[in-house]
Amino acid sequence: MIRVGIVGISGFSGKVLLDILLKHGAVRVTYVAARSTTGRVDTIWPQFRGRTDLVCEVYDPQAAIAQCDLVFLAMPHTESMAIAGKLLKAGKKVIDLSADYRLKNISVFKKWYHAAHKDPKNLLKAVYGSPELYRAAIKKASLIANPGCYPTAAILALAPLVTVHAGKILSISIDAKSGVSGAGRKVAEGFMFCFVNENFKAYRVLDHQHTPEISYYVSKVAGRALDITFVPHLLPVDSGILETIYVHLDAKVSADQLHMLYKKFYKAEAFVRVLDLGRQPELAHVVRTNFCDIGLAVNENRKTLVITSAIDNLVKGASGQAVQNMNIMSGFNESEGLL
Amino acid sequence: MIRVGIVGISGFSGKVLLDILLKHGAVRVTYVAARSTTGRVDTIWPQFRGRTDLVCEVYDPQAAIAQCDLVFLAMPHTESMAIAGKLLKAGKKVIDLSADYRLKNISVFKKWYHAAHKDPKNLLKAVYGSPELYRAAIKKASLIANPGCYPTAAILALAPLVTVHAGKILSISIDAKSGVSGAGRKVAEGFMFCFVNENFKAYRVLDHQHTPEISYYVSKVAGRALDITFVPHLLPVDSGILETIYVHLDAKVSADQLHMLYKKFYKAEAFVRVLDLGRQPELAHVVRTNFCDIGLAVNENRKTLVITSAIDNLVKGASGQAVQNMNIMSGFNESEGLL
Amino acid sequence: MIRVGIVGISGFSGKVLLDILLKHGAVRVTYVAARSTTGRVDTIWPQFRGRTDLVCEVYDPQAAIAQCDLVFLAMPHTESMAIAGKLLKAGKKVIDLSADYRLKNISVFKKWYHAAHKDPKNLLKAVYGSPELYRAAIKKASLIANPGCYPTAAILALAPLVTVHAGKILSISIDAKSGVSGAGRKVAEGFMFCFVNENFKAYRVLDHQHTPEISYYVSKVAGRALDITFVPHLLPVDSGILETIYVHLDAKVSADQLHMLYKKFYKAEAFVRVLDLGRQPELAHVVRTNFCDIGLAVNENRKTLVITSAIDNLVKGASGQAVQNMNIMSGFNESEGLL
Amino acid sequence: MIRVGIVGISGFSGKVLLDILLKHGAVRVTYVAARSTTGRVDTIWPQFRGRTDLVCEVYDPQAAIAQCDLVFLAMPHTESMAIAGKLLKAGKKVIDLSADYRLKNISVFKKWYHAAHKDPKNLLKAVYGSPELYRAAIKKASLIANPGCYPTAAILALAPLVTVHAGKILSISIDAKSGVSGAGRKVAEGFMFCFVNENFKAYRVLDHQHTPEISYYVSKVAGRALDITFVPHLLPVDSGILETIYVHLDAKVSADQLHMLYKKFYKAEAFVRVLDLGRQPELAHVVRTNFCDIGLAVNENRKTLVITSAIDNLVKGASGQAVQNMNIMSGFNESEGLL
Repeated sequence: MIRVGIVGISGFSGKVLLDILLKHGAVRVTYVAARSTTGRVDTIWPQFRGRTDLVCEVYDPQAAIAQCDLVFLAMPHTESMAIAGKLLKAGKKVIDLSADYRLKNISVFKKWYHAAHKDPKNLLKAVYGSPELYRAAIKKASLIANPGCYPTAAILALAPLVTVHAGKILSISIDAKSGVSGAGRKVAEGFMFCFVNENFKAYRVLDHQHTPEISYYVSKVAGRALDITFVPHLLPVDSGILETIYVHLDAKVSADQLHMLYKKFYKAEAFVRVLDLGRQPELAHVVRTNFCDIGLAVNENRKTLVITSAIDNLVKGASGQAVQNMNIMSGFNESEGLL
Repeated sequence: MIRVGIVGISGFSGKVLLDILLKHGAVRVTYVAARSTTGRVDTIWPQFRGRTDLVCEVYDPQAAIAQCDLVFLAMPHTESMAIAGKLLKAGKKVIDLSADYRLKNISVFKKWYHAAHKDPKNLLKAVYGSPELYRAAIKKASLIANPGCYPTAAILALAPLVTVHAGKILSISIDAKSGVSGAGRKVAEGFMFCFVNENFKAYRVLDHQHTPEISYYVSKVAGRALDITFVPHLLPVDSGILETIYVHLDAKVSADQLHMLYKKFYKAEAFVRVLDLGRQPELAHVVRTNFCDIGLAVNENRKTLVITSAIDNLVKGASGQAVQNMNIMSGFNESEGLL
Repeated sequence: MIRVGIVGISGFSGKVLLDILLKHGAVRVTYVAARSTTGRVDTIWPQFRGRTDLVCEVYDPQAAIAQCDLVFLAMPHTESMAIAGKLLKAGKKVIDLSADYRLKNISVFKKWYHAAHKDPKNLLKAVYGSPELYRAAIKKASLIANPGCYPTAAILALAPLVTVHAGKILSISIDAKSGVSGAGRKVAEGFMFCFVNENFKAYRVLDHQHTPEISYYVSKVAGRALDITFVPHLLPVDSGILETIYVHLDAKVSADQLHMLYKKFYKAEAFVRVLDLGRQPELAHVVRTNFCDIGLAVNENRKTLVITSAIDNLVKGASGQAVQNMNIMSGFNESEGLL
Repeated sequence: MIRVGIVGISGFSGKVLLDILLKHGAVRVTYVAARSTTGRVDTIWPQFRGRTDLVCEVYDPQAAIAQCDLVFLAMPHTESMAIAGKLLKAGKKVIDLSADYRLKNISVFKKWYHAAHKDPKNLLKAVYGSPELYRAAIKKASLIANPGCYPTAAILALAPLVTVHAGKILSISIDAKSGVSGAGRKVAEGFMFCFVNENFKAYRVLDHQHTPEISYYVSKVAGRALDITFVPHLLPVDSGILETIYVHLDAKVSADQLHMLYKKFYKAEAFVRVLDLGRQPELAHVVRTNFCDIGLAVNENRKTLVITSAIDNLVKGASGQAVQNMNIMSGFNESEGLL
């Protein structure tokens, strides 16, 4: 039994984290905090009435250090990097759900997040929390950079392909669609019901901050710099991401070869489900789970691939994957609390 | 004042057609029919209570010929080609909203619609009802093949580009998303509320029957055979199509050049709105209108274009465009009843 | 052809008003204004691109007087009463969509709207713009207090009953459900997509500001003070109100009697549709129309009535009814622009 | 560890049951069946891929008896009563989620379910599975009639009131709203996305089959026959029921008295949350939980009460309550698998 804390309980990721952790057999949530929100958690999120008496405090490093063995940071970008260092120094494990420790290059970070990095030392030590790619490193890590939601779906969809066929790739275009919770608990006209419901649109076309994260980690797996076109869209649903990825090759690949490659790559993974050829992922099959579903199709000339992947942006794309990382770091069963 | 008929009033396109035509200043709806549904139109569609006393009959060619100058066929695919001939022979004008007269090659038709073509003679005479491309021919036509919903958005989005830059194109990938009404009034589990709401998925990946229609007409405009990758998705909204089109080039194009090209191409068009650079179409801005909105973006290396287009699948993608064609054929103001 | 102005174009009612008026054959919109928003209307509402070149100004009484014959005030409550007087004095007709001129008793107004009334003189002259009840007075009026959305559905549903059976009524309970646009274009967490979608709740239980308006006008028709219980709810849809009204009587009424009473009462009305017994209104049948649909049911002991009524809150519940009032005041066909 | 079976896995209740039971620490699902559907459960419900290898068979009493200690019957009404008897005779415990064993009077059953009762003997022995009212009897029962979804919300909302104030009640009107999953996995036009989305309506007004169940059990608690007016509505959401109940009294009750009565009545209950005065239940706070939230309001004259209650129709209104009953019958912690 370890003692865990959540910083950022007032956001959607914090809420989902708490929901998972309250049912988790091997942890006790001993500390919850936020930047400014305070009060009983079941007032902040009435869903929790009857499930917890936890009280949210304004974040205090001493309290966090005294009360936790491991701390989840579920705050907006650029806030974690001011907090994580002290926790790590006190010997605590930290899982950061923000983007602060994902991009290894601080000038790339600055370009996309409009802030200088405050903790470059720990940035180098942080392990990218994609269990399917970096399980061994996660096991030994103190600081996890929990992957972004769009990158999680993209990287899992592309990793097997680029591991083997990177040399054949002419272009990769990712058409991503996300539910509204992906924007966080932001109160802005663009996220009002009347502006989202019965609507659909692309946003931040060729300009989304997850683009460098996707390019960096896909290229890293490929062993070669790959240029990726990324366009996100806003779906009128609460949760879920579906990405449709168009890959043009200069050599042929058959659907069966591709399918076998993916099945083998994810053979031992509990949370990646490679669908049979002819089947397609649906948000409804992954929402509120930690699964990533992947579908594959190849066109007649066998040089165009369509790879689709679906996750819940708040679970496998955030809090669920964070708990999966905690399980690995703590020696728990990797799927504890997640199945 | 001309007399018009609607065959297929029980479907969504029929309903939208009637709604537009009841407000149209230059026509009178004198005949409505369906394959099997009968009875007062305001029983079939209670929306029309207090607006019309029309009664739907089982389709009878004699009645249609006697009562109409122009007939809209809004029936499922493969049904119009059994009906249109007789109407044309009697000197009536016909606007067919199905796919029956869109594909000029009958073996391609057979491959995608699983039926032999029954009216190849009129197939050759039919004019593809895309006013922005074929206005002059529409003016003189007796039989209009009204474009499909996905093709309308795709062709309008690509026409300016391929008119000028066809030679530079390496690949075109169309990621299309449609509201549920695009499937018609089909009662099937996949379209039940609990299976669509809060869900999203790709379907008929690389296998949708609109693929050859898009390829044929885009290639025709380009003057060169272009291979197009097309993947449709089902959006949890009633109406609207948004397509995000990824074009990879082997030469550079700037965003400004592209924007000027599109503005010029559609300068005189009432129903195509080319958005300013930096702006993106939204379903909410086109739903229940006959507009097609187009957005443009170019990546840093200027070799990847992202073209987005949005229409209402039942209006510009079906009944609105059909009325636009009727207006052209009949010498009415082209936007009569549509603005 | 009259010249009309809209003050409050940035709100939902203003948008719907403009949409109706641009298609109206007998008016020209010559002036649009708002409290603080300025700029092209098709920037404020991109839906209007290609339909109008109107530019929104900060409201200026001189401009409004110079450019309009009739002015629609579509602003938040307590703002119209500061504006209407000057327009009336200049001989302009005014249709106020806010609550400012609906409650004749200024202390009741103060209690529910938390503001002293600034224009009690014109309050007395204002005619309540319910065409089905007060058509003759509307015809001669200069100032119309356009009814609230909930009151419109409630009053139309109850007027026939209380005209005849007021003496038998023991209790009236109105369970009202409204789409989110009823709250206006308010940016608040409670109206964010993630807090409304897949959700439903009652709000302002026994405490909604439309309660006195409903009680006052229903009692006026009844000729007797009737106590009404009113509970509104927030539906996860854009538009539409459905009210289910429970009336307990101390004497029997048969379903057929009730139905005949309602059919007769609304016989000559273009916009009230009394449904056959056994049928029920649906939002989908009235949304984006000016209709009010009414359904009737009586229980076995014939002492409990269930009356249901449905409208579009932005059309019959606001802008459509406002145009209907304009049509009456201006001697136009009452349904011009509305069918 | 007990062995449990689910008959009716292809329906929504069956799916939710399996989801709960797979996470339940004290049971093993050993048998799943349906009337006609067969095959792997993760083909019937792809959500379960990676979670279970169970295979659904056509229901066979011998197999069920051999493989289960307790069987959940989650089939359409009138099917359970043909099956339950044999299971009970073999010493198995049975929890029936259909209406077959809820109405004690077989002529009332026949009137509302249009079928003669086939198992009147066990009907008398069946215990109504409302833990908050009948926990002691449930503990000893072999056959549970699991309450209907609407009745669960209604009975929990009214039980405290009628226990104390039954003599003061003049009328009770229940305005109920349910998500679409309440209709089951029915493929019918009325439940298609395009006919439900952005829509809302009352249905089976004064004629719903849950009416006698509500009246019977509320009257039983009251110790007096109470006449109840019940009108259900269809909400455009997947899951959740909210009921707004209007009670008119002939004597006064204060809000504080009422609130204290409810708090005391449900003091020891894990799954009923009586909200503070001024707060209202929301679907979002109970969906996917076994909670019932109750809100209370009293009007100024203290003779009109508005009681609101919210549940998830598939959890507390079906499968969750069924598991709660199983926990009680089996001596497990009552909230095992449900918090």
